[in-house]
Amino acid sequence: MARVAVYPGSFDPVTYGHLDVMERAVRIFDRVIVAVANNASKNYLFSMEERLSLVREAARGIKGVSVVPFEGLVTDLAKKKGTNVLIRGLRMTSDFEYEFQMALTNRRLAEKVETVFLMPSERFSFLSATLLKEVARLDADISSFVPKCVEKRLKERMKRCASK
Amino acid sequence: MARVAVYPGSFDPVTYGHLDVMERAVRIFDRVIVAVANNASKNYLFSMEERLSLVREAARGIKGVSVVPFEGLVTDLAKKKGTNVLIRGLRMTSDFEYEFQMALTNRRLAEKVETVFLMPSERFSFLSATLLKEVARLDADISSFVPKCVEKRLKERMKRCASK
Amino acid sequence: MARVAVYPGSFDPVTYGHLDVMERAVRIFDRVIVAVANNASKNYLFSMEERLSLVREAARGIKGVSVVPFEGLVTDLAKKKGTNVLIRGLRMTSDFEYEFQMALTNRRLAEKVETVFLMPSERFSFLSATLLKEVARLDADISSFVPKCVEKRLKERMKRCASK
Amino acid sequence: MARVAVYPGSFDPVTYGHLDVMERAVRIFDRVIVAVANNASKNYLFSMEERLSLVREAARGIKGVSVVPFEGLVTDLAKKKGTNVLIRGLRMTSDFEYEFQMALTNRRLAEKVETVFLMPSERFSFLSATLLKEVARLDADISSFVPKCVEKRLKERMKRCASK
Amino acid sequence: MARVAVYPGSFDPVTYGHLDVMERAVRIFDRVIVAVANNASKNYLFSMEERLSLVREAARGIKGVSVVPFEGLVTDLAKKKGTNVLIRGLRMTSDFEYEFQMALTNRRLAEKVETVFLMPSERFSFLSATLLKEVARLDADISSFVPKCVEKRLKERMKRCASK
Amino acid sequence: MARVAVYPGSFDPVTYGHLDVMERAVRIFDRVIVAVANNASKNYLFSMEERLSLVREAARGIKGVSVVPFEGLVTDLAKKKGTNVLIRGLRMTSDFEYEFQMALTNRRLAEKVETVFLMPSERFSFLSATLLKEVARLDADISSFVPKCVEKRLKERMKRCASK
Repeated sequence: MARVAVYPGSFDPVTYGHLDVMERAVRIFDRVIVAVANNASKNYLFSMEERLSLVREAARGIKGVSVVPFEGLVTDLAKKKGTNVLIRGLRMTSDFEYEFQMALTNRRLAEKVETVFLMPSERFSFLSATLLKEVARLDADISSFVPKCVEKRLKERMKRCASK
Repeated sequence: MARVAVYPGSFDPVTYGHLDVMERAVRIFDRVIVAVANNASKNYLFSMEERLSLVREAARGIKGVSVVPFEGLVTDLAKKKGTNVLIRGLRMTSDFEYEFQMALTNRRLAEKVETVFLMPSERFSFLSATLLKEVARLDADISSFVPKCVEKRLKERMKRCASK
Repeated sequence: MARVAVYPGSFDPVTYGHLDVMERAVRIFDRVIVAVANNASKNYLFSMEERLSLVREAARGIKGVSVVPFEGLVTDLAKKKGTNVLIRGLRMTSDFEYEFQMALTNRRLAEKVETVFLMPSERFSFLSATLLKEVARLDADISSFVPKCVEKRLKERMKRCASK
Repeated sequence: MARVAVYPGSFDPVTYGHLDVMERAVRIFDRVIVAVANNASKNYLFSMEERLSLVREAARGIKGVSVVPFEGLVTDLAKKKGTNVLIRGLRMTSDFEYEFQMALTNRRLAEKVETVFLMPSERFSFLSATLLKEVARLDADISSFVPKCVEKRLKERMKRCASK
Repeated sequence: MARVAVYPGSFDPVTYGHLDVMERAVRIFDRVIVAVANNASKNYLFSMEERLSLVREAARGIKGVSVVPFEGLVTDLAKKKGTNVLIRGLRMTSDFEYEFQMALTNRRLAEKVETVFLMPSERFSFLSATLLKEVARLDADISSFVPKCVEKRLKERMKRCASK
Repeated sequence: MARVAVYPGSFDPVTYGHLDVMERAVRIFDRVIVAVANNASKNYLFSMEERLSLVREAARGIKGVSVVPFEGLVTDLAKKKGTNVLIRGLRMTSDFEYEFQMALTNRRLAEKVETVFLMPSERFSFLSATLLKEVARLDADISSFVPKCVEKRLKERMKRCASK
C-alpha cells in the first residue's frame, strides 16, 4: 500500500511554504521523499548541492522526510522508490493550470501514478519563489518567508550578484 | 498512520466521476469511507436511502470502499472513523474557490484534518451533477455519465417529476 | 456545409450583449437561428411569448437572424435545423466553466455538434442579466444595457412586481 | 476631496473579514460609512435591525466607522453622502467576476463613482458567509470567524431554525 | 460569406490538440488555412521550414486544410485570404486571458475580423507545448501527444540538443 | 490622513490604461505619485530616462500627478513619501494572482501599507504591454492604445530594433 510519497520540486530555495506541505504530508504518509529536481532547461539560483543541503537543514526537524536529488521523469523516480503517489502543494494563488497540466501529463506517462494535492496554510498561500528572490535582492526582511539558514544563504548570494 | 480516508459528498446521484475518484483513492489508502451527506438546508433529488443504495451498488466492484450516511461536521466523522484525511475530487472545471473555502474551514474546525485533492480523469472533468439532471430531464442518453443502475433510477425519477 | 448556426439562450430579457453576438454571428454564418429556451426547472421573469417577441423586435434590424422557441435538447434542435453549429457568447467575465461543461455535455450527446464561442464587445463584457434585473428593480437608468423596447417592458414588469 | 468612503454589503452577519476591511479602510479614508443593504429579492438570515445592530456592536472599536441602512442604488447613497468612493473587500478566493460586474455596472450608473478594492488579511481570505452559516448550523466552534456578539446571535438563530 | 477561416499559431511542433481543432474547423468552414507564424521575438525549437513540413505531413488526412507560413499581423493575412474569421482552440486549461487580449487586440486592428473559439477534445485539454518538449527531453513516451512524424523529429532534436 | 498615494509600475511604455488609472486615482487622492521602477533583473525596452519622460509628457494634463524614478522596495518609497497607500490597476484580464502575491508580500514587509486596487475602463481591460510591443513591431496602428508621444517613440524604437 502507498505508505511512501514523493514530493518533487525545484526548492530554489526551500521556503516555509514547502516545509508546511512536508509537515502535512508526513501526517498522511509514513515516509515523504523530497525530490530536488535538476532540469537542464532551467536557470537555478542555487546549485543542486546547495538546494539539497538547504532542504536537508530546513527539514531536519520533520520526522519521516528524506531528501534526494533527481534528474529525468518524476514518474520514473516514483517507480524506483516503489510508490505511486506524488505530492504537490496547491496554493490559493498558485498556477492551477500548470499543476493540472503536469499532473495529467504524468498520468499519461505512468497511468498508476497519482498526484495528491495538499493545501499549505493560508499564511503561505501568497509566497512565490520569484517574488521572494526579488525582495531579497532589495535587501528586505525575509525572515517570515524562509528559515534562518536559507535567509543567510540567500542574502549572501544576492550580495555576490550585486557586486558583480 | 493514515490508512483510512473519508470521501464526503452529496452523491445525488453518484456519477462515473465520483467512481473514478474512489478508484484512485483506494490505490493510495487502505480503506476509503464514502460519506453520503445529509444537509438539512439542501434539496436533494434522491433521498438518503436512495443515494446510499446507489453508491453501494455502483461502488460494489471497488475493493476497499465502504459507504456510510452522515450528518453534522465531516471533521467529526473523520475523528470518529480514526482518520485525519478527507478526499475531494478537483475537476479541471470545478469550483476551486468553494473547495478551498471548505478545506480551510474544515482545517479551522479540526486542525489536524487534511484535505487531499485528487484529479479525476479528464474524461469526467466536465461532468456536473446539475447539468446531468438537466439533460436527464430532457430524456437524453446519459449512459456515458452514470452507471446503469443510476441511469435507470434517474430516468424513473424524471418521469415522475414530469408527470406531476 | 455549415451555413446555419443556432444561438440558444434564455434571453430573459435580450440585452445589447446578445445583440452584439448576433451581429458578429451573421458575419460568419448565412443564417443564425436564435433559439429561445424553455426550461421547466427555471424561473423566468418573462414568459416565452414575451421573450420571443422582445428578441424579434430587438433583432429586427439584423439581417439573417430568425427567432424560434424550443424545448428539449439544443443538440436535437440543431439536427432538426440541419446544422452542427451552436453559438455562445463568451464574455471576459462570464462563467467559462459552465459554458465548457455545457459544450462538452452537448458534444457527448451529439458528437458532431460543435460549439463556437464568440466574444462580444468589451463594452458588454460585464453585462449580467441578474445584475440588470437588480438595478432595473431599483429604477436605475438601464438604457445603455438594453434596447428601448426591452427597457420599457422591464420597467413595467418591475413596477408590477413591486406593487404586489 | 474624497475623505469619505461607503462600504456597502449585506453583512448577514458581519464577520472578522468585514471588520478587517473596515480597519484597513479607516487608515485610508477619514470616515467610512458601512451601508447595510436591504435587497427585496434576497433572503436574509437576520433582519435589517439585527444586521445593523450587530455591525454597530462589532465595529464599535474602529474609529471613523459609522453604520447606516440603505435601500436602492448604492451609487445614489454615495452621492447623498457626498462621496464618489465605494469600498469592496477582494478576497483571494472571492468572486472577482461578480465584483467586477457590479463595479462596472455602478460605473455605468454613476460615471464618477469609483470602486476601491481592498484585500483583507489572508487569514480571512477563505471566510464565506454561506459556509459560516452552514457550520454554525452544525454547532461548530465559530469563534475564530466572527466576534462574540455575532457568535451568540448566530447560535440562537440556528437553534430556533432547527427546532422548527 | 465566411467559408474560409484562418487558424494561426506557432505549431512548434504541431500536436494532436492542434489536429483536433483542425478537424472540428473543417466541419464548420469550407476551407481552413493553417497559418504558421514567424515572430522575430520568439525562440522556436523548429525552423519555419520544419514546422511547415510537420504540419503538412500531420494534417495531410484532413480534407479542406491548407498550410501557409506568415509574418506580420494575422489580421492582414485574413484580409489577404479574403476572410474575416480567425480560429483559436480554447483548452479548458489554456490561458483565457492571453487569448482574450489577443482577440480584442486583433479586433482593434481590424474591426471586422472575428475570432472564433473552438474547444478541442477534453483528451487534449491539458496538452501544453512547453510540457511536451520538457518530457520529450527526458526521453518519455510521447506517442499519445503527437503524431509519429512529430515524435521522430522531436526525439532527434532533443538528442542533438543534449549532445551539445 | 492618506491624501497621497503611490502608483508604482514599469511603464515600459505608459499606455492609455495607465493614464485611465491615474485619472481615477486623482479623484480619490489629493496627490498621486507615479513611481517608475528600475528593477535590475528586468529587461526594459525603454531606459529609465525615456520611461520617465514619456510618463511625464503623457500625464501632463492630469492634475495632482507627479512622476518619480525609484529603485528598491516600493514600501520604502511609500514611507519616504509619507503615505501608506499603493495603487494598482486591476484589469479584468490581468494577473490577479501576481497582484495578490505582490500586495501580500508588501504587506508583510510593511504592515501598515495598503494596496488599493482600481479598475480601469473596460476599454483598456485587454491592453497588455507585451501584446502592444508585439503589434507595434509589426507596424500596426496603435493609436488607440497609447498617446501620440508614446506611439512615435515606440515606432522609432521598433524600426531601430528591426534594422539591427
